[in-house]
Amino acid sequence: MLSVTLLEHTPEPERVVAMAARLCYASVGAKELSERLSDEKVKEMVRKMVAIGHGSTLEHASFTFGVEGVSRVLTHQLVRHRIASYDQQSQRYVASHGFQYITPPKIAGNPAAKARFDALMEEIRSAYDELVELGVPKEDARYVLANAAETKILITMNARSLLHFFNLRCCLRAQWEIRQMANRMLAEVKKVAPTLFHNAGASCVNTGLCPEGDMTCGHLEDMLKLREP
Amino acid sequence: MLSVTLLEHTPEPERVVAMAARLCYASVGAKELSERLSDEKVKEMVRKMVAIGHGSTLEHASFTFGVEGVSRVLTHQLVRHRIASYDQQSQRYVASHGFQYITPPKIAGNPAAKARFDALMEEIRSAYDELVELGVPKEDARYVLANAAETKILITMNARSLLHFFNLRCCLRAQWEIRQMANRMLAEVKKVAPTLFHNAGASCVNTGLCPEGDMTCGHLEDMLKLREP
Amino acid sequence: MLSVTLLEHTPEPERVVAMAARLCYASVGAKELSERLSDEKVKEMVRKMVAIGHGSTLEHASFTFGVEGVSRVLTHQLVRHRIASYDQQSQRYVASHGFQYITPPKIAGNPAAKARFDALMEEIRSAYDELVELGVPKEDARYVLANAAETKILITMNARSLLHFFNLRCCLRAQWEIRQMANRMLAEVKKVAPTLFHNAGASCVNTGLCPEGDMTCGHLEDMLKLREP
Amino acid sequence: MLSVTLLEHTPEPERVVAMAARLCYASVGAKELSERLSDEKVKEMVRKMVAIGHGSTLEHASFTFGVEGVSRVLTHQLVRHRIASYDQQSQRYVASHGFQYITPPKIAGNPAAKARFDALMEEIRSAYDELVELGVPKEDARYVLANAAETKILITMNARSLLHFFNLRCCLRAQWEIRQMANRMLAEVKKVAPTLFHNAGASCVNTGLCPEGDMTCGHLEDMLKLREP
Repeated sequence: MLSVTLLEHTPEPERVVAMAARLCYASVGAKELSERLSDEKVKEMVRKMVAIGHGSTLEHASFTFGVEGVSRVLTHQLVRHRIASYDQQSQRYVASHGFQYITPPKIAGNPAAKARFDALMEEIRSAYDELVELGVPKEDARYVLANAAETKILITMNARSLLHFFNLRCCLRAQWEIRQMANRMLAEVKKVAPTLFHNAGASCVNTGLCPEGDMTCGHLEDMLKLREP
Repeated sequence: MLSVTLLEHTPEPERVVAMAARLCYASVGAKELSERLSDEKVKEMVRKMVAIGHGSTLEHASFTFGVEGVSRVLTHQLVRHRIASYDQQSQRYVASHGFQYITPPKIAGNPAAKARFDALMEEIRSAYDELVELGVPKEDARYVLANAAETKILITMNARSLLHFFNLRCCLRAQWEIRQMANRMLAEVKKVAPTLFHNAGASCVNTGLCPEGDMTCGHLEDMLKLREP
Repeated sequence: MLSVTLLEHTPEPERVVAMAARLCYASVGAKELSERLSDEKVKEMVRKMVAIGHGSTLEHASFTFGVEGVSRVLTHQLVRHRIASYDQQSQRYVASHGFQYITPPKIAGNPAAKARFDALMEEIRSAYDELVELGVPKEDARYVLANAAETKILITMNARSLLHFFNLRCCLRAQWEIRQMANRMLAEVKKVAPTLFHNAGASCVNTGLCPEGDMTCGHLEDMLKLREP
Repeated sequence: MLSVTLLEHTPEPERVVAMAARLCYASVGAKELSERLSDEKVKEMVRKMVAIGHGSTLEHASFTFGVEGVSRVLTHQLVRHRIASYDQQSQRYVASHGFQYITPPKIAGNPAAKARFDALMEEIRSAYDELVELGVPKEDARYVLANAAETKILITMNARSLLHFFNLRCCLRAQWEIRQMANRMLAEVKKVAPTLFHNAGASCVNTGLCPEGDMTCGHLEDMLKLREP
């Protein structure tokens, strides 16, 4: 079961963004700025920073997620996002006897496929156990583990990096599992920084551009049609 | 006057590092881990992560500083540290009439030099004002401003990046102004994460290595002599 | 005098991008891919990678520039681009007696302003020399140097980072000096990677979006008007 | 079969490092510097930059490798190195019928384990094919693929990042497969930049420090003993 928890974050993420913004343009000091900013002013400045893409101000707000119930298909994609910090459960040090696994919905919804899939996972579990019994170290036995094997990961990203991550991974063209996780992360950060992430999501929603070319899902075109008179 | 304020930080910086560490090596989930970690266990794990240089776990703890009373000599060096986020007061948008400036101690302590220095700063202030009056935009008038001109900057770094920053900038061979700021930053983070930054500082103190070669200050050698029987 | 030289670059920048692209989508190996790609196919694939924003493929092509005749106003902005490598002439180690300087066009074209500016630079040169004579170390005497002081810098960026740099810095809203340098860098890379940088430039030109909001120069609007029937 | 090819690199990697170094400390321009540097001088400066850890100068030299015959165990670790660029063969777009796989030596050398391992891989191949026949998309069928499945990847790293990579991954404590690849990469770059990578390798060899604590392999201790009288 996918579980996404916002474990830690910069205590007042929107206030720190607003302070950064004002520091750039005003002649007062950092401490003073903080004292003088009302909640309404903070919101206004955050909206402006997001709108004009003044990305550096968004980097001072940082978010740490604990994620469980995801496959290594997902994490191998995830860790390609380099402006982020990760720590992941090790298959080298943690034994994988009776490992859990993620079943893709298109397999779960296809009884013949599901039966084959489950049987294979059972087979892989047995093979892993047998190899370990035969004296193969865990770090080598793991070569048999499936991409589907469940893993856990800690993710820290700043708001700028998150907005970019959502652009790519909330997109309907993104792989289903990472999209599901990205949407859950977005829901979490919206609770603590609603203005900062107000308009966050796939590129089409967030920037009005679809970078997918011929492979577009058509969502942007649909949105634009709705706006026509 | 140099002012270094720790404006924001990950609420429990050492706990998040310990959680990251345990996630890698244990088979329980992130939430569970947090509940079960005593303060003593947190400290023990943080010590271990720092000792073995498991840097990724240290990245989840993030610190935001407001810094004032520094020169652009300092900030031009500072922003070369790329694993960090900055927002700096703009000389393009903020007028610099009567700008403040930083006087190096070796000038402050040399009356003839100080007189020359102060007179020149006064001269630059006048020139800036005159240029603006002659219709030169602020963004061009600033070409006359001295390196000494005071600036303000917001800095966010994670603990791993900070440890590296302290290695280089708390060193006696570092430029005096950035060293002064680095030492103040170190004092601030020690208050909220004493175990994480227990042994932080210049390379010689932190790693037992001096990378300065022939240009060493000799501090490491002195420390090693003290340890001899 | 601004001087921008492309000192080194990945020997066949477009071929390496095309190879990266094919590796992702084809079942043949890296060496094979290279042998089979015609020049025409390379161009086609590069065009596609740029169009769909498959940025990772563009990172394998890297460019090193030697830049001289720029001010520290420029370099302080430049080094804020963190996905890049820099080495800059040190004012700490290299003496600045009789330093050269950059005169902004709006000062150069205003005789009264120019006279004031030149006189001040002369004054700063004298002050620098006097301070050094009074025993102030170079690294402290430099506090008097103007933002206008000439510096030299070596820059390495990959194609993805360059495209982003051009988005921001070829923009008419960018500061004039860094825009001038960015345009020169763009001209240089177009000579060796014309397809890769075909459409490069300010955001409006490159992406069809203007992130400047109310502060837009109007160029995008003008371009869109031209396209109307 | 592991295959590591150095596909592209900065044409004169050591010369560009030397130029960067001289630019920092000398008062002549970049072009001039290049002309005046003899091969012997280049080597001398590179040696110095490596010795004092002036890392920024090493970043201007960049290396692109094509790697084949590696498992996803390896690539999932590899892509955690963030100061690098990657493009990897996609299991989403490229079909994996009859996929190749990597057999760990400790399995290859244990006949019972090898038989079990090979049979399981055959079983996974069949399951993959059946799922695709049952209408499961490639991107979901891949959830059954083993960690052992062969993949191909393009890697670009600069010399500074490579030196760090070798510190960690040439270490005897590193996982055997990535260590094998790291050693091959090191052999390749030594051919084109022998001075730059002269002393490269595991931390103990390169820096004289072992960060592994209690888990040290003892190699450093052995080396130190050899140096005793």
